[in-house]
Amino acid sequence: MRRLRAGIVGGGHGAFIGAVHRIAAELDGQARVVAGAMSSHPDIARESAADWFLERSYTSYEDMAAAEAADEDGIDFVIVATPNDLHCPVARSFLTRGIHVICDKPLALTVSEGEELLRIVQAGSALFALTHAYTGYPAVRQAREMVRGGQLGEIRKVMVEYTQDWLMEPLERRGNKQAAWRTDPARAGVGGCVGDIGTHAANLLEFVTGRHIEAVCADLSSFVAGRRLDDDANILLRLEGGAKGTLVCSQIACGEENRLSLRVYGSEAGLEWHQEEPNTLLYKPARSPWARLRTGHGYLSPAAQAATRVPPGHPEGYLEAFANLYRDFMQDVRRVALGQPPVRDYPGVEDGLRGLRFVAQAVASSQAGSAWLPVQDRQQ
Amino acid sequence: MRRLRAGIVGGGHGAFIGAVHRIAAELDGQARVVAGAMSSHPDIARESAADWFLERSYTSYEDMAAAEAADEDGIDFVIVATPNDLHCPVARSFLTRGIHVICDKPLALTVSEGEELLRIVQAGSALFALTHAYTGYPAVRQAREMVRGGQLGEIRKVMVEYTQDWLMEPLERRGNKQAAWRTDPARAGVGGCVGDIGTHAANLLEFVTGRHIEAVCADLSSFVAGRRLDDDANILLRLEGGAKGTLVCSQIACGEENRLSLRVYGSEAGLEWHQEEPNTLLYKPARSPWARLRTGHGYLSPAAQAATRVPPGHPEGYLEAFANLYRDFMQDVRRVALGQPPVRDYPGVEDGLRGLRFVAQAVASSQAGSAWLPVQDRQQ
Amino acid sequence: MRRLRAGIVGGGHGAFIGAVHRIAAELDGQARVVAGAMSSHPDIARESAADWFLERSYTSYEDMAAAEAADEDGIDFVIVATPNDLHCPVARSFLTRGIHVICDKPLALTVSEGEELLRIVQAGSALFALTHAYTGYPAVRQAREMVRGGQLGEIRKVMVEYTQDWLMEPLERRGNKQAAWRTDPARAGVGGCVGDIGTHAANLLEFVTGRHIEAVCADLSSFVAGRRLDDDANILLRLEGGAKGTLVCSQIACGEENRLSLRVYGSEAGLEWHQEEPNTLLYKPARSPWARLRTGHGYLSPAAQAATRVPPGHPEGYLEAFANLYRDFMQDVRRVALGQPPVRDYPGVEDGLRGLRFVAQAVASSQAGSAWLPVQDRQQ
Amino acid sequence: MRRLRAGIVGGGHGAFIGAVHRIAAELDGQARVVAGAMSSHPDIARESAADWFLERSYTSYEDMAAAEAADEDGIDFVIVATPNDLHCPVARSFLTRGIHVICDKPLALTVSEGEELLRIVQAGSALFALTHAYTGYPAVRQAREMVRGGQLGEIRKVMVEYTQDWLMEPLERRGNKQAAWRTDPARAGVGGCVGDIGTHAANLLEFVTGRHIEAVCADLSSFVAGRRLDDDANILLRLEGGAKGTLVCSQIACGEENRLSLRVYGSEAGLEWHQEEPNTLLYKPARSPWARLRTGHGYLSPAAQAATRVPPGHPEGYLEAFANLYRDFMQDVRRVALGQPPVRDYPGVEDGLRGLRFVAQAVASSQAGSAWLPVQDRQQ
Repeated sequence: MRRLRAGIVGGGHGAFIGAVHRIAAELDGQARVVAGAMSSHPDIARESAADWFLERSYTSYEDMAAAEAADEDGIDFVIVATPNDLHCPVARSFLTRGIHVICDKPLALTVSEGEELLRIVQAGSALFALTHAYTGYPAVRQAREMVRGGQLGEIRKVMVEYTQDWLMEPLERRGNKQAAWRTDPARAGVGGCVGDIGTHAANLLEFVTGRHIEAVCADLSSFVAGRRLDDDANILLRLEGGAKGTLVCSQIACGEENRLSLRVYGSEAGLEWHQEEPNTLLYKPARSPWARLRTGHGYLSPAAQAATRVPPGHPEGYLEAFANLYRDFMQDVRRVALGQPPVRDYPGVEDGLRGLRFVAQAVASSQAGSAWLPVQDRQQ
Repeated sequence: MRRLRAGIVGGGHGAFIGAVHRIAAELDGQARVVAGAMSSHPDIARESAADWFLERSYTSYEDMAAAEAADEDGIDFVIVATPNDLHCPVARSFLTRGIHVICDKPLALTVSEGEELLRIVQAGSALFALTHAYTGYPAVRQAREMVRGGQLGEIRKVMVEYTQDWLMEPLERRGNKQAAWRTDPARAGVGGCVGDIGTHAANLLEFVTGRHIEAVCADLSSFVAGRRLDDDANILLRLEGGAKGTLVCSQIACGEENRLSLRVYGSEAGLEWHQEEPNTLLYKPARSPWARLRTGHGYLSPAAQAATRVPPGHPEGYLEAFANLYRDFMQDVRRVALGQPPVRDYPGVEDGLRGLRFVAQAVASSQAGSAWLPVQDRQQ
Repeated sequence: MRRLRAGIVGGGHGAFIGAVHRIAAELDGQARVVAGAMSSHPDIARESAADWFLERSYTSYEDMAAAEAADEDGIDFVIVATPNDLHCPVARSFLTRGIHVICDKPLALTVSEGEELLRIVQAGSALFALTHAYTGYPAVRQAREMVRGGQLGEIRKVMVEYTQDWLMEPLERRGNKQAAWRTDPARAGVGGCVGDIGTHAANLLEFVTGRHIEAVCADLSSFVAGRRLDDDANILLRLEGGAKGTLVCSQIACGEENRLSLRVYGSEAGLEWHQEEPNTLLYKPARSPWARLRTGHGYLSPAAQAATRVPPGHPEGYLEAFANLYRDFMQDVRRVALGQPPVRDYPGVEDGLRGLRFVAQAVASSQAGSAWLPVQDRQQ
Repeated sequence: MRRLRAGIVGGGHGAFIGAVHRIAAELDGQARVVAGAMSSHPDIARESAADWFLERSYTSYEDMAAAEAADEDGIDFVIVATPNDLHCPVARSFLTRGIHVICDKPLALTVSEGEELLRIVQAGSALFALTHAYTGYPAVRQAREMVRGGQLGEIRKVMVEYTQDWLMEPLERRGNKQAAWRTDPARAGVGGCVGDIGTHAANLLEFVTGRHIEAVCADLSSFVAGRRLDDDANILLRLEGGAKGTLVCSQIACGEENRLSLRVYGSEAGLEWHQEEPNTLLYKPARSPWARLRTGHGYLSPAAQAATRVPPGHPEGYLEAFANLYRDFMQDVRRVALGQPPVRDYPGVEDGLRGLRFVAQAVASSQAGSAWLPVQDRQQ
């Protein structure tokens, strides 16, 4: 038993998500980020590494993968926190050297890249986790357990939403780097908003309901003049098993911060959750008052209880949810090191590939005048 | 200046909406309901009339229309509070005799009936109001004024929802009269949930934004086995002027009471309103904190201020909103009596016809596999 | 069975509460206000009466009491909607002539006046109701039933609050008539804020818990310079049976509208209610999630169900709550007319007297440096 | 520039707050906990140290202080996370050896111990921070800035509350260690609930308003039979500068988790904050709608912006607030190491001593029948 050693690719100065990954990886004291290729700019890489007190800094992720794999005290896993276009090459580089990977979403730039990663993961022994961090919230895990346990009955209707407003102006033409790559098809893929946050919404929905999205009927828009990718999407959904619903995502919804919300309606009960107040789960059993489930309580499922660190009423948030994914992933890293089979209770490469297909089919549906298109696995 | 005299058709024992109309009509002391054909069953008609202390009771609306029109102290206007299939014949009967009509929604059973009523109203001098009561809320009127005043900029995105759960079981087969006629195409029309409450949502959206729904792409469902009309609908919308959005309505959303909610996002600000907490309007100007507008305050528009009866913090609700529609309608009744032109600041026959077309096209779209269909006025 | 005939004293132009009483009295169609002495100014009295379509208008309440008592078609009951200093003389005038009285709160100007009214009511046959209207809310009645039924166990702790901000400026010196009499000891009594709204809070607390306030330890303030009565009060409470708590009232709490809130904590459960969102009652059973009880549902007590007029999710508010008091009072008026004993399920003269003693002792406690003082009935 | 080295006393297995301190200290990657005396039980100390991967483990805080002070690579500061009775001796041991101390609240067991610590800190060069962690929330810092900036005008009224329910049963007699020491005067001091959480409420109030509590009038209770310390308190407050208010704390308020709430009312505006939804601050300017300030936005003060790590809508919670205190403290540790004067922008020994006096005087006031007692500094 020792602390795990982590490396990171990306996350240099100016990147928001890099620090989030570091905090999440280290929160429980089970790992330290010790190595990184935080930027391809040598100065930024060096300064970022110094700020983080890294032991080893690289300017090339290839060099890093090679060196760490060759070092018996090298990293146990790598964090991929780059723009989307690098997810696949970086992940491939480490996976093929047997280094476990935990990667930001979406999985890759294209469905075909995603399929390649699936083959690599299936062929090798290295673990792969995708940081759909919202699945780490204790209330989300409680929701999943309640659906699994049949408390909702037959699932009939779903409503999932992820709205923001930070792209309501053309920031990509005003020097904002985050906006620039997210609105550039070469770096973000075919989906804009639908890829950046629609995939989170789709993943959350599938995680909680345990049903895959079967088909989409989408209407995508670019409200900001000159934008090359969608910044808003309204999508009708059909799920396996007969449920129907809507998925709405937007980055031009003036006044919204990070409004990810999920509602699930069954024949016996409904559920409602809001990411911006994440410690509450509304449970709506038929003919009874709504119950306000709160994280940290003994009346929750073991899975939900295990996902809190503090007593009820001490709010936990985004970083703690993110850390829960890391905790589950790192427990698998330890299991594999001990020769035990991994549990894989976190989003993985299949989820990521399904997310890429969701994006591709939503874009295609919209281009086809909102035709219903299937979101199927290749083998189906 | 005297109190107005009102009559009512429908609203006998067991009908929820009849008492609502009476309270709304009488709330400000400007009218009294004095005559009625409250039921075609003579006993129910008589008992209902006695309970309401009516001066004149009829068992036939035709008799009532004839008698009241012939009486110089007859009613000034009639309230139509019957199931949908009677809206058109009853309204016609009074309108053609010059008696003003205030009618529950939807306007009629079919688009063609609606078109007939439009012709009758346009050809005659009697007023016609349609009780889309949610437009009577002060916060809704404030929202409309803010859109009109340009505070939202260009309207980009809308989300409107009306969810209930009271039909999640097959009540129509368990003796519930309200459920029976609402799920019977012969009495309700081609739309179930989409006609009963979807029309409210569509009307509210158009009322606040001042934009008509231009096209729909709908997915309707009947989740309760054996039900002949839809009990759930997910609809993509396009509005005049380029806004897009979703309209979701359901009567099987377990745990929801009467959740009518509207969000409007513009290039300068957003708005959000929830009918179940109607005295608050959330205003979300770009780059600023949300402001929580509350009814009764001097900072509201005159139109919103005029729609409250009590000081801030004294909640007003559904009945008061309903009464606001009556107030506006009755002011027109007085204007016409004085030879003045009516103001018509309440939903009317054109709105009702548009609502019928919305229902018809949503049903048709769903039947066509969620094709985009226009919701246009005939003359367009 | 005929409609009841009501009269009103006070409520002329400029008075907010007069119209509230009229609406509440007439809402269910069981009574009409037909006579009034709405102002001692003849012009205002005449104009107000015309606006309300009154059949008989007086400029003196004494004349009115005499005339109506002598008229076999005279009023069944009178509404007292004057400033506090007239409550006692007006009520006396009608009560001693056998006309039932429903009177705004507080009961009278002084404890001694209150005691006189108690004697008059006890000696005569006329009914007396005091419009502590907040007891009319269905959720409040549900709360009372739950305490009565033992669902809270032993009551330990209470927190009641009534905060407003409308007197945070010296409106009484700027021509505001409502502010003028409420800050004038000769017209309002010894209490300012504590008399005007503190009595509502105290009454609500006693109504729900069924426990009387036994002692107070008060700190009253006048924050607005030159004001002669308190505009803010912080009060420690002890209740019969051992519960303790706080009562906070203020009319200078910047930003508050009409924030009347009650929390009750027992050994088995807690309750929480907010007047500004009155259709929800939070129930907090030990070791379980909070349940969100909503008005109109079949799971509520019969007393709470009887106090709603519309289905769940159709908000009811202040006027409907007020009307519930009138309904209960008028049912007693009918009972008495039929020779039946009244039920008196509404605040009455004893509650009013206890309220006056609460005010007097809160003022005395504050003057004595926040000494604990009893709030006892004389006979105790 | 290197990572700081921290030590910890207390926090062994079974202690909730130890892990909180570790996470908070390490969250930003600026320090690592490397040494500890986590328990006086050798086995627990060893196991706890192994779980945390500590480099040096002690079973005596005296040994630890001596050894670390003598080691040139010894700790830079120590975390005191023991029950209250050890705060003073542990802190003294490190302070007198020149090692900076960050200590859980309350400061000490008695006022006299607190005075001793004040003398030690004033006489030495080592820093002292007290973890009133709620002051670390960005919204709390925003509130303080708004009061400082005059946006509230003259402060008139305050309401602060801290309610829980975890001691509503006699857990101290059922083997709960947390409950056992907190209800034992020898380990907790003269205050039970008022010491454990009342001090947080008092500190938060003083932090935000910048006004000290001048006097208290208290009513303390022990509702659970056999309990030796208070488990509930209702307290009237007077603040420097003329504001008045209430402080309510309870550990028997059935259904409450960790409900710390603050309201401040001034002559120009009000503020409201709820710890359980900490990322929102309600601002209530006179005659205007409430504004809902949210953490992470550019419209906040620099102090509030500096206290967030993620964009708006990504909730932060208790751990992040706690980490903000550590960040400020550790920046001072670095300043002192560089010979710069410390900024001391976190609760310190004076705040802690004032807290102890608040507890002592609240207890004394209650024993004296709720007499007003001053909470003054000795020198006053």
